[in-house]
This record gives sequence, C-alpha cells and structure tokens, in this order.
Amino acid sequence: MAVLHPLTDAAATPEARAILDEIRAARKSDFVNDFWRVLAHDPALMRATWERLQVVMAPGALDPLVKEMIYVAVSVTNGCSYCVHSHTAAAKAKGMTEAQHGELMAVIAMAAQTNALANALQVEADPVFRAER
Amino acid sequence: MAVLHPLTDAAATPEARAILDEIRAARKSDFVNDFWRVLAHDPALMRATWERLQVVMAPGALDPLVKEMIYVAVSVTNGCSYCVHSHTAAAKAKGMTEAQHGELMAVIAMAAQTNALANALQVEADPVFRAER
Amino acid sequence: MAVLHPLTDAAATPEARAILDEIRAARKSDFVNDFWRVLAHDPALMRATWERLQVVMAPGALDPLVKEMIYVAVSVTNGCSYCVHSHTAAAKAKGMTEAQHGELMAVIAMAAQTNALANALQVEADPVFRAER
Amino acid sequence: MAVLHPLTDAAATPEARAILDEIRAARKSDFVNDFWRVLAHDPALMRATWERLQVVMAPGALDPLVKEMIYVAVSVTNGCSYCVHSHTAAAKAKGMTEAQHGELMAVIAMAAQTNALANALQVEADPVFRAER
Amino acid sequence: MAVLHPLTDAAATPEARAILDEIRAARKSDFVNDFWRVLAHDPALMRATWERLQVVMAPGALDPLVKEMIYVAVSVTNGCSYCVHSHTAAAKAKGMTEAQHGELMAVIAMAAQTNALANALQVEADPVFRAER
Amino acid sequence: MAVLHPLTDAAATPEARAILDEIRAARKSDFVNDFWRVLAHDPALMRATWERLQVVMAPGALDPLVKEMIYVAVSVTNGCSYCVHSHTAAAKAKGMTEAQHGELMAVIAMAAQTNALANALQVEADPVFRAER
Repeated sequence: MAVLHPLTDAAATPEARAILDEIRAARKSDFVNDFWRVLAHDPALMRATWERLQVVMAPGALDPLVKEMIYVAVSVTNGCSYCVHSHTAAAKAKGMTEAQHGELMAVIAMAAQTNALANALQVEADPVFRAER
Repeated sequence: MAVLHPLTDAAATPEARAILDEIRAARKSDFVNDFWRVLAHDPALMRATWERLQVVMAPGALDPLVKEMIYVAVSVTNGCSYCVHSHTAAAKAKGMTEAQHGELMAVIAMAAQTNALANALQVEADPVFRAER
Repeated sequence: MAVLHPLTDAAATPEARAILDEIRAARKSDFVNDFWRVLAHDPALMRATWERLQVVMAPGALDPLVKEMIYVAVSVTNGCSYCVHSHTAAAKAKGMTEAQHGELMAVIAMAAQTNALANALQVEADPVFRAER
Repeated sequence: MAVLHPLTDAAATPEARAILDEIRAARKSDFVNDFWRVLAHDPALMRATWERLQVVMAPGALDPLVKEMIYVAVSVTNGCSYCVHSHTAAAKAKGMTEAQHGELMAVIAMAAQTNALANALQVEADPVFRAER
Repeated sequence: MAVLHPLTDAAATPEARAILDEIRAARKSDFVNDFWRVLAHDPALMRATWERLQVVMAPGALDPLVKEMIYVAVSVTNGCSYCVHSHTAAAKAKGMTEAQHGELMAVIAMAAQTNALANALQVEADPVFRAER
Repeated sequence: MAVLHPLTDAAATPEARAILDEIRAARKSDFVNDFWRVLAHDPALMRATWERLQVVMAPGALDPLVKEMIYVAVSVTNGCSYCVHSHTAAAKAKGMTEAQHGELMAVIAMAAQTNALANALQVEADPVFRAER
C-alpha cells in the first residue's frame, strides 16, 4: 500500500543490500522492517538515515528506552501510524512495561491537552522562562 | 498578548484564587506562571486541568524528569511556543543536564525526520508490529 | 514582523484597494486587519480568499457563531497564532459568551487529548463507523 | 491492527468492565466502540478519560451537536482517522444533517487554507485582537 | 472505508455528474479518483474545490511539476495519507523522476528536522528576516 | 526569547566556532543567523545538522530554488515561525520572484484545504495509486 513497494534483498542494489545487512547485524535479527525496504529505493537517503539513527539512539546521557519513548511521543503527535507501530514495538523490545506504556500515553495526552489550551489562549511566555542574551 | 489577560490574585475569583494557592503550595514557590493566570478566567477548566496534571506528572513507573522530557517532545512537535518554554524550564528545574537536553533535541529531530519519510512513503505497518486480536 | 509588510490603502494596487473597500463595506467598519493588508501584495490570491470566505461563512445550515467557533478550533489545532487571535475576536463580536468560550476550549482540549490517545493506540475504525459502498 | 488489541468484556478487568457498563448505560446501547476496548488495558487512564469526556460533552452553554462538530474539526485537523470516523458518526447520531456536514467541512477547509496563508505570511496579530493586561 | 461512500456516475446528482465530466475532460482520462466521488455528496463544495484547483495548479510562474511536488510536501507534513498517494502519483504522471522523488523526500525530511530544532529552541526570527513596515 | 541564548563567536567553543566559520565561507557572507548561534550550545548536533543540510540542499535533480520553496512549504505547514522567516528569505536570495512567491502560497493553501477535506472524508487511497508488491 506504500507509494513504493518494499524491496526484497534480491531486488535491492548492492549498496542498499549492504545496509540491510548492517541493520540485521546491529539488531542481531534476520528481520528487517518495511520502512527500510521501501527506503532502499534511494540508497543514499537510506544510508544517511540509518547512520544518523545509530548515532542518535545510542546510549548516552539518556538511556535507550527513554529515547525510544520520546520517539513514540513525537510519532504519536505527528500522527505517523507506521512510526507509532514500529517505535512502540521497539520500546517494548527495550523493556517498556505495561505500566510505563500507560504513563507514556497519559503524559502524551496531557501535553496534547495543555498545548491546545495554551494555543487557544495564546499565552505569552513568562519572562522567567526565556534565556537572557 | 494573550486572548485573555492573566489575572492577578486580587482579580481572580475565590475558586481560582484557591487553585493559585494550591499551585504555590505544590511547587513550594510564590511564582505562578501566566498559563494558570489566564486559565483562571474559567475556574472549572482550571481545576480539571490542574488536578489531572498532578496525577499524570506524579512519580510512578516513569520518573518525573522523563515525564517532563516527554512533555517537551510533544510540545515541540505541536509547535506550542509557550509549552516549550515552560516545560523546558520545568525539565531543567528537575535536573535535566545540558547533555540530556541535547540528546532530547536530537531524538525529537530524528523522529520528525523519519516520521516525514514514513509519511512520504506511506509504508504500511509490518504485521509483526500489530497486536493480535 | 511579517514576511511581507502590511500595505496601507495608499500603497495597495487599485485591485487590492477595491477588495479592502469591499471588506469595509461587508463588515460595516473602517478597520481592516493586517492579514488582508499583507495578502494585498497578491491581489488575485486576496480576491479568491475573500470571495470564498464570504460564501463559506455566510449563514446557512449552521449559524455564523457556530462557524466561527469551528474556525477557532481548527486554528488552535493548527497552532496559527494570528488566526486564533482574529477568529476569537470575531467569535466574540458575533456574540460568543465567556461560558461558550470556556466550553469551546474544553472541547478542543478534550479532542486533542483523545486524538493523542487514539493515535498512540492506533485503534482501527470500527466497521459500524464506515460508510458502506 | 492497533498497538494493543481490543478487550472483550470477558477479558477486561473488573474495573475496566465497570466502565464498559457505564458507557453502555450512558449511551443506552449495547455497543461499545474499540477505542474504549483498547484503552481498557489501562483502567485508570480509561476512567479519567471517560469521566472527563462526560463533563465536557454534557449540554451547557453550547449544545451537544455543536460540541460534537467542534470535536470533528479538531480531529480532522489532527488527522486522527479513528476520531474522525467515530465523532462524525456521533454527530450524525445527534442529528447533524447532510447540509450541516457539508458546511462543517467547508469551514474546516477554509480555516486550513487561511491558517496556511497566515503562517506563510507570518502576519503579526493586530493590537486590537490582544487582551489588554 | 470513508465517512461517505464514493458515488458512481449513476448515483451522482446532475450537478456532480457535470463536474465528473469536466474532470475527465481536463485530464483526458476516463478515470476519476475517489476523492471527487466522495466529495460529490456536496456538489457546491465539489465545484468550488475543483474550480480553484484548476486555477492554482495551472502553469504560471512555477511549472506544474514544481507545484505538484510542493503539494506533496504539504500533504506529507499534514500526514494526509490519501493526498500523499494521489499527488505522488500526479507528480510521477507529470514527469517526476526517481532522482527527483528522492531529493523531494530528502528536503521534506531535512525541513521536518530543522523545524523541530527551531521549535525546540524557540529561536526568535533575526531582524534581517523581517519585512520593514 | 529563545530557550537558550544565541552565542557570539567569542562565546562559542572552538568546535562550534569552526562551524560558524564554515557557514560564513559557504555563504560568502559575514552574517550567521541565530538558529546556528543557538544550536552552537551543542556542537555535535550543530555539525550533524549543518553537514546534512549542505548535502540535501546542493544542486542535484532539483534546482536549489525549488528545494528552498519545498522547504518553505514544509515550514509553513509545521507552523515553524523561525523557519518560514529564514527560508522565505533564502528563497528570495536564490531568486524567487513575487509571482513565484504568490503561487507558492496559493499551492500551499490549496493543499492545506484538500488535505483537510480528504481527512474529513477519510477517503481511502484508490488502488491505482498504490505500488504493487
């Protein structure tokens, strides 16, 4: 149902095939989801996206599960169906419990609600919230 | 610059004034930001919002700083200027370091980017991501 | 602060000036807000927008105040600061009471919240909600 | 296809089952749509959402059909497929005529259009639209 | 799966049928996509939309393919699944190459990313970017 | 008014300062806009963003002005005020005429309008628009 069809390994160019192999190696899994198989139509864009994703989602000052939940929050807010599915699954794979999932959704819904109120009221940011030059 | 002006304590109804006092008590601070002072025009909506916020943002399966960063992520994605200012300040008050702030922004930007790609390609969710009935 | 500056009547082309006059006549007011004065840089786009707006917002199966509140709801959700300001003012001018304004905001915030939950859960539309072919 | 599967009455916890019963009683119908059956995985979030919804959508300064159409407008603008389906159905159940539905869509589309123009032009809100302190 | 079902030519009113004929004539094709067949439930809205679309998308200072790619960019950003499908198809029909499609997606994704960063940082527009009065 | 203040060259770290120099060299101008000066608080994110931007916006299958107009379209749709200002200025610097600007806005507004209609109607993508597996 996509704009472009997902490519099998056999149909992918050598450059795209190499990235599919890198994804499998990084994830220690034979499965590669269709986002990458569709993006494989443009190996340069696929490589830039995959490489940046590895850097951004690596453990750092925030742990990988927290990063994944933030990813879900953005995806929900953007209404990206595919991304909500894939990153919710990724968060579960990284150990998100049912209780954490429930709280994640409650915070997202709360923020959506007060974002709407602040936008409706057009409240101007209090001076104390702004960085001084 | 708001659609309604922020109410001082003196101008607020007794019902709204009571909530302003609750906010000060909960935050152990004399300062109440303008979101609440503008919302004070509708004490019923103000009370429902404040009470739900307390429940949702309380420590639970997720710690308060993680919840606050998720709140920022939603606010950024909704483009709510007031909310980004106030919740970024709240996250800093809860201990968000510069490194954590940087990673928060990097994850938000990464998600925005792949959300756009998934929407552009209209990739259909892989069966493995879907809950079985 | 706009991308293009608002045009005074003197600076507008005759075609744009004619539309400014139509706006004044339709509203029975000498004041024309800056949206139209900025759009006046492109008289063709200005005319198409003004004429369609007149048709859409005229009394019909829905009364003008209801239409104006729907307009506010969309503008809030899109985070369009200018539009929230101008259409909230328009709704007040058409008789929106404080109580109606409060309920309008409460519904917008409620919808934002359940929209977020439905997007987070990716619930599929129940068959009963869908039109049969 | 949801992230979590809809729960039957038998599969729901007693707490969630009680809310399903409340929904049936309030609506005078045996049917409960899947939004609630999926949300039933988190009875606390389900209860908070259901109770708030009852308060917000009750007859008040705005009549229930107007509230429902405002709900549709927000849902369309957020691109929430489930919500557009369910709240359009709810609006029809509350008496929305074909002519009202057509005008609702025309206003939503008009607002989307001028929101885009105002955002493109970055028009600053006229002083007359702003609340004085 | 739509809120209203697509109308066949036989089921459409004479007014809607006339527009279906105009669409076929303008496109030199017998096929009319479902957007128009669903919109046919409201012939007045259908006519206003079709007539404006013809004016806006006609060759002018921008060529039709560039206009179509801009249309795709907006549709992707709004997360409108139908529109992404139909306008990507239209862009291909107007000659969009695979390389152009790849670059279009890369620009959309880049903009989504820096939009998120600018919203996260709440950078104020540099004075040099603003139109002088 | 930003969440973080813009850094002068003197206040930036050597790593950020080097990127500021690269921006000046690439643009053949002494001026660096505040987006980069605020992002300079996180040199790693600043570098990743700057380097990717150079690749994406370089001349290719699409010319730089077309890319810039697509960037504006996304920024308008996301309601990113800073980005609309900066990329509209960039498009003008790359030769966008008033007529092209007007058509760009007309297409953005048209797409916003039909996106809203397609979302309101929840039209399902015609089979002919979908990629076959």
